Amino acid sequence: MTAPAAPDFYAVIPAGGIGSRLWPLSRAEEPKFLHDLAGTGQSLLVDTWNRLEPFAGDNIVVVCGVAHKKTVTHELSALAKTNLVLEPSPKDSTAAIALATAIIVRRNPDAIIGSFAADHVITDDRRFGKAVFEAIATARDGFIVTIGIRPTEASIAFGYIEIGEALAVEGAPHAHRALTFTEKPKADVATEYLDGDRHLWNAGMFIAKASVLLDELRTNRPDVAEPIEAIAEAWDTRERDEVVAAQWKRIPTVAIDYAIAEPAAEHGRLAVIPGEFSWDDIGDFAALARLHNRGRSNVLATLGNNSRVLNEGSSGLVVSESNRLIAVVGVKDIVIVDTEDALLVTNAANAQRVKSIVESIRRTGADDVL
Amino acid sequence: MTAPAAPDFYAVIPAGGIGSRLWPLSRAEEPKFLHDLAGTGQSLLVDTWNRLEPFAGDNIVVVCGVAHKKTVTHELSALAKTNLVLEPSPKDSTAAIALATAIIVRRNPDAIIGSFAADHVITDDRRFGKAVFEAIATARDGFIVTIGIRPTEASIAFGYIEIGEALAVEGAPHAHRALTFTEKPKADVATEYLDGDRHLWNAGMFIAKASVLLDELRTNRPDVAEPIEAIAEAWDTRERDEVVAAQWKRIPTVAIDYAIAEPAAEHGRLAVIPGEFSWDDIGDFAALARLHNRGRSNVLATLGNNSRVLNEGSSGLVVSESNRLIAVVGVKDIVIVDTEDALLVTNAANAQRVKSIVESIRRTGADDVL
Repeated sequence: MTAPAAPDFYAVIPAGGIGSRLWPLSRAEEPKFLHDLAGTGQSLLVDTWNRLEPFAGDNIVVVCGVAHKKTVTHELSALAKTNLVLEPSPKDSTAAIALATAIIVRRNPDAIIGSFAADHVITDDRRFGKAVFEAIATARDGFIVTIGIRPTEASIAFGYIEIGEALAVEGAPHAHRALTFTEKPKADVATEYLDGDRHLWNAGMFIAKASVLLDELRTNRPDVAEPIEAIAEAWDTRERDEVVAAQWKRIPTVAIDYAIAEPAAEHGRLAVIPGEFSWDDIGDFAALARLHNRGRSNVLATLGNNSRVLNEGSSGLVVSESNRLIAVVGVKDIVIVDTEDALLVTNAANAQRVKSIVESIRRTGADDVL
Repeated sequence: MTAPAAPDFYAVIPAGGIGSRLWPLSRAEEPKFLHDLAGTGQSLLVDTWNRLEPFAGDNIVVVCGVAHKKTVTHELSALAKTNLVLEPSPKDSTAAIALATAIIVRRNPDAIIGSFAADHVITDDRRFGKAVFEAIATARDGFIVTIGIRPTEASIAFGYIEIGEALAVEGAPHAHRALTFTEKPKADVATEYLDGDRHLWNAGMFIAKASVLLDELRTNRPDVAEPIEAIAEAWDTRERDEVVAAQWKRIPTVAIDYAIAEPAAEHGRLAVIPGEFSWDDIGDFAALARLHNRGRSNVLATLGNNSRVLNEGSSGLVVSESNRLIAVVGVKDIVIVDTEDALLVTNAANAQRVKSIVESIRRTGADDVL
């Protein structure tokens, strides 16, 4: 057993969401977090685990769907059986994070939790660590804390957090009050935010005392808090299955931004630590291409287990999970995703439309490839 | 046995050439002529056979490589065993056509042969037939005859034949003398040809008395004629294999345009019948896309045995011989060729470069996909 580096700190990894925009790479059975999208040689889930272990030691709770129990436990050999929370059905981030928090607080009433998505890419662990330590310090002061990413471009793919006044928190010189949340903005607004230097990208990272987070939820959404608390109360008992069966279906499906973060910001209880590291939620293949081309516009990046890619004057991204020879000739900014049973060809400009293809596949009943 | 529609007429179908620019659809083992590129539900070879049968009846001689004996005889159930000429190795069109002609003339000294490539697409059989009848009539008059296609655009992918004065041939009101041959011209020259209305595309169709064709060859290229005649002399005897083994390697590799057609034109012995039908040699995927999109620029044509192609706002061509679901999202003028072991993604503008990809595959030794 590794000793936790931050006392009472528990990491929560909600491993939900399929990542439809990354079809046919990401599938219901093998969602985004199980793929090596960062090119590290391991899944994003394992990357996330490794990034959090220095702070949380063994205190890492993973929340995933029952369907992924086997793959998740296979990926995370250090994950304690008691730290795996299985969801009978997806209920968005509030249910996942709140349930993990409510279970943790019953094991350690002083717990501070930090929730980090299983499928994001962060490339500077040292700077990430500094932000997490400041966030933990700020959380000890009673705030709900988010780490907001310093924008490097006027992205319209991310939400934004407006930074307020500096907070005087010991051990967190960069803590500020978080004022408002903005969903994916229009391009002109995004440019304004970038230039104004008062907005950060919302990376969905939340750090708080477990008790504070649950109080906030209870205040804002008692309808969510009540079944969550009932399940958590029974979790480490023989009644777990019975209570889950009765209560899970009662939980409203809602994102933590709405249920906790935005109301907390309104009430002045949300703090933000600027994260000075590169981060991406890799929402689509355009983002994945950007990540692997590192700004070079004339490169054809290749990702996956396929070394047989032949390129003549093309740029973009090839992701391959097949063993076929792939020849790409003179096409610019292309995205090719090659799997055993499905092939996608698109480009960066149309990467967001992949979701609608997935929807039409669902409508036509060709679920075998979803 | 069907009675030939044109007395003494023999069709020759040289079925050679892999069609490297159509890789990975066209392969060494399954070259272009074995594919259903016209979308007729059968191979180009069968289309060619069916187009010639009304004139030649059973008198159709097919020349192919030994490697394709099995597939060719399987495709052409009506092909008489004695009418299949197997080449030990490829020697270009002169050897193929001259050998077939030399074999035929020994069976029928009055034979008129007409040679038509196995892998071209012609979409108006009636007009094709009219041109062939005129060509046969002109051949009876002692000319070597070609059918030249009336250009419909300033193509730089085809060679051109310059039309001379009208010939007074009974049964061939459109016969003209053929003056010169031009290889694939530059764009400005092609435009000049199109506007001038005095040039036709060289479609590689040659019709002549067998004896006339062989005389022309003997005059121009005795080095080719001599081993060909030796093989033909032995062909219908027990010595065939022995003589082929001894002589085949002596045959120079040369196209019929150089060995027969151009010299015949120089000597005033070449006639041309304008072909007023649509024709294409489908030299690359751009040509294949044009054929199937019929000039509509916003269409994504699909070809092959795959009905699982999903398109959102794309145009171009998808050829699939796999059973994978193929989703094409927002890419214009794209060419996707999907086979079990190789995938090509390019566009019409780069279709000619496919040949160089095939060459680099050969260099890297990944011959399994060639």
